Amino acid sequence: MKRKMVIHTPHGDLATPFFMPIATRGAVKTLSSFDIEHLGSPILLSNTYHLWLRPGMDVMKEMGGLHKFMDWNGAILTDSGGFQVFSLSGLRKLTPEGVQFQSHIDGAKMMLTPELCMQIQRTIGSDICMVLDVCTELPAKREDLETALALTTEWAKRSKNEFEKTREDSINPGALLFGIVQGGTDIELRKRSAQELIDIGFDGYAIGGLSVGEPFEEACKVLEALDPILPKDKPRYFMGGAKPHEIVGYVERGIDMFDCVLPTRNARHGQLYRFIHDDLSRPDFYETVQITNEKWKMSKEPIGEGPELSRYTMGYLRHLFTVDEMLGQRLATMVNVKFYLDLMDKIRQRG
Amino acid sequence: MKRKMVIHTPHGDLATPFFMPIATRGAVKTLSSFDIEHLGSPILLSNTYHLWLRPGMDVMKEMGGLHKFMDWNGAILTDSGGFQVFSLSGLRKLTPEGVQFQSHIDGAKMMLTPELCMQIQRTIGSDICMVLDVCTELPAKREDLETALALTTEWAKRSKNEFEKTREDSINPGALLFGIVQGGTDIELRKRSAQELIDIGFDGYAIGGLSVGEPFEEACKVLEALDPILPKDKPRYFMGGAKPHEIVGYVERGIDMFDCVLPTRNARHGQLYRFIHDDLSRPDFYETVQITNEKWKMSKEPIGEGPELSRYTMGYLRHLFTVDEMLGQRLATMVNVKFYLDLMDKIRQRG
Repeated sequence: MKRKMVIHTPHGDLATPFFMPIATRGAVKTLSSFDIEHLGSPILLSNTYHLWLRPGMDVMKEMGGLHKFMDWNGAILTDSGGFQVFSLSGLRKLTPEGVQFQSHIDGAKMMLTPELCMQIQRTIGSDICMVLDVCTELPAKREDLETALALTTEWAKRSKNEFEKTREDSINPGALLFGIVQGGTDIELRKRSAQELIDIGFDGYAIGGLSVGEPFEEACKVLEALDPILPKDKPRYFMGGAKPHEIVGYVERGIDMFDCVLPTRNARHGQLYRFIHDDLSRPDFYETVQITNEKWKMSKEPIGEGPELSRYTMGYLRHLFTVDEMLGQRLATMVNVKFYLDLMDKIRQRG
Repeated sequence: MKRKMVIHTPHGDLATPFFMPIATRGAVKTLSSFDIEHLGSPILLSNTYHLWLRPGMDVMKEMGGLHKFMDWNGAILTDSGGFQVFSLSGLRKLTPEGVQFQSHIDGAKMMLTPELCMQIQRTIGSDICMVLDVCTELPAKREDLETALALTTEWAKRSKNEFEKTREDSINPGALLFGIVQGGTDIELRKRSAQELIDIGFDGYAIGGLSVGEPFEEACKVLEALDPILPKDKPRYFMGGAKPHEIVGYVERGIDMFDCVLPTRNARHGQLYRFIHDDLSRPDFYETVQITNEKWKMSKEPIGEGPELSRYTMGYLRHLFTVDEMLGQRLATMVNVKFYLDLMDKIRQRG
């Protein structure tokens, strides 16, 4: 069931399946765009909500969009910020018009609507924009899920209208727009959501509201149910964290695009991903090691390959973490991002 | 009075005057050796005391010394650690044999002697080793200064003996050894200290115990008094911080080598050094700017030159600091280290 396609964006072609390093605030934590180029990722993921608040759209406009702002010539996908706004529980209020909330920075009252969300992403100049969706906390009553779903579809329509209206005047008119399938783990609702989005018509379809604590098997069931419904020729994006062996499983269930905070976040805590063997069909094909472990004290094993990573040993990296040198977090981040990129390489090369 | 020479080390020739970025614990804070190579420094400064404690000499030995440990092929100077040990006031006790102290990491009782200090630097494999000196807190009574001075000379002799004894078996037999002139701001004591060290004979002479709060003019007087005494053909190293215009003044008073924590420390607080004009004889040839200032919000001015720094704007760097992205500290560090290296370039090129 593995799919192969090439997604054409104004900032390069993307061979699927692929992984997107997370640059929430316009930088992959600890790394420069120079570093990401060296690591070889053709795309980054950034966040509408965070960039809207800081640096703000006045800066983004003046700077000519995020590509220029961070001097990144690859593709950029921006998450709509819905997930972030809905995570501000207590501070936000859902209305049919949009979602009211208080900024996590200064408490300012703000309102994000599907239209504004499109305008922000147009200002950012994303290559792949995401509609604003309604995220429901799980577990949820079926009627709450149904209401959220109806509003998600309604917002998806409004998003598409605004996206088309703003195309011509935007800095990146060739951008794509993805819809987001919701419905929790309710298969019937998931199918309904997908069908309603397909009727509107998008350049790609994301599966939202998973990776929120449900078991892997539960997520797989949703993907298996959606597989025959989603258009074969449009990319499918699994939103949210996925461990390496889960990515393999999701690719087998038709997913083309991934993001995940684990490689970068774990790196900053000294946890490194490493391949054990090449048989991706067995979930034990990788391990995570804690670099601060005594075991690595004298290790001369290189932390990775390539002109920069091959220079440093596990022993040196352990030392950097032990004495709290920031360089340690940066090198570990490079190791883990490289691992996820290599994983996708291996998956693409599988028969 | 500006001097020009080339210091030959086993890891490259060093044209004076030059600045040494500080890699206390085996890394210039936020930067890799790859980064330092790109910035173009031919030498780094590391610290005997800190490396002795962590990673420890068992690791250093197994790894084949600091050059291999951090994969740095340029020269390395190691400070003797005397300043660090003597800063542990309350926790240390001076005896003629050496200085007893408690580790700042785990409180372990340790003793640093001139001989051990040499052995550690031999294990590190430094290109330029520093003798262990007695640092006196200022202001001090003259008799205390005299006692400290006598011991400093005694330790310098023992250091040189141990340095020669350990040469043959060391990983870097071509290393140089510098003596450290003490004596506070007492000109007579300074001269006596210098003469005693010259009688022992070293590859270079450092001026210690300055840059501890005394006015610039006071330091200059010491340097002016030492200039006719110190051998013309041996390098002279001003230990401790020096602001850019002070470096110009010290070079004019015969100094060849500098280190300073300011460019790296200030960078991490968002303070950038920038040239205003090329007339180094006027102390206003540079400025420091606070990148978080509103003024830089929309600035498209590049943060620096070269393949990496020319890519990023002051506006982007401000954003990184505002949202607390570590990348900001790293880029700012590169800007400031580059400034100090460029300053030395300009000084070397002066008529």
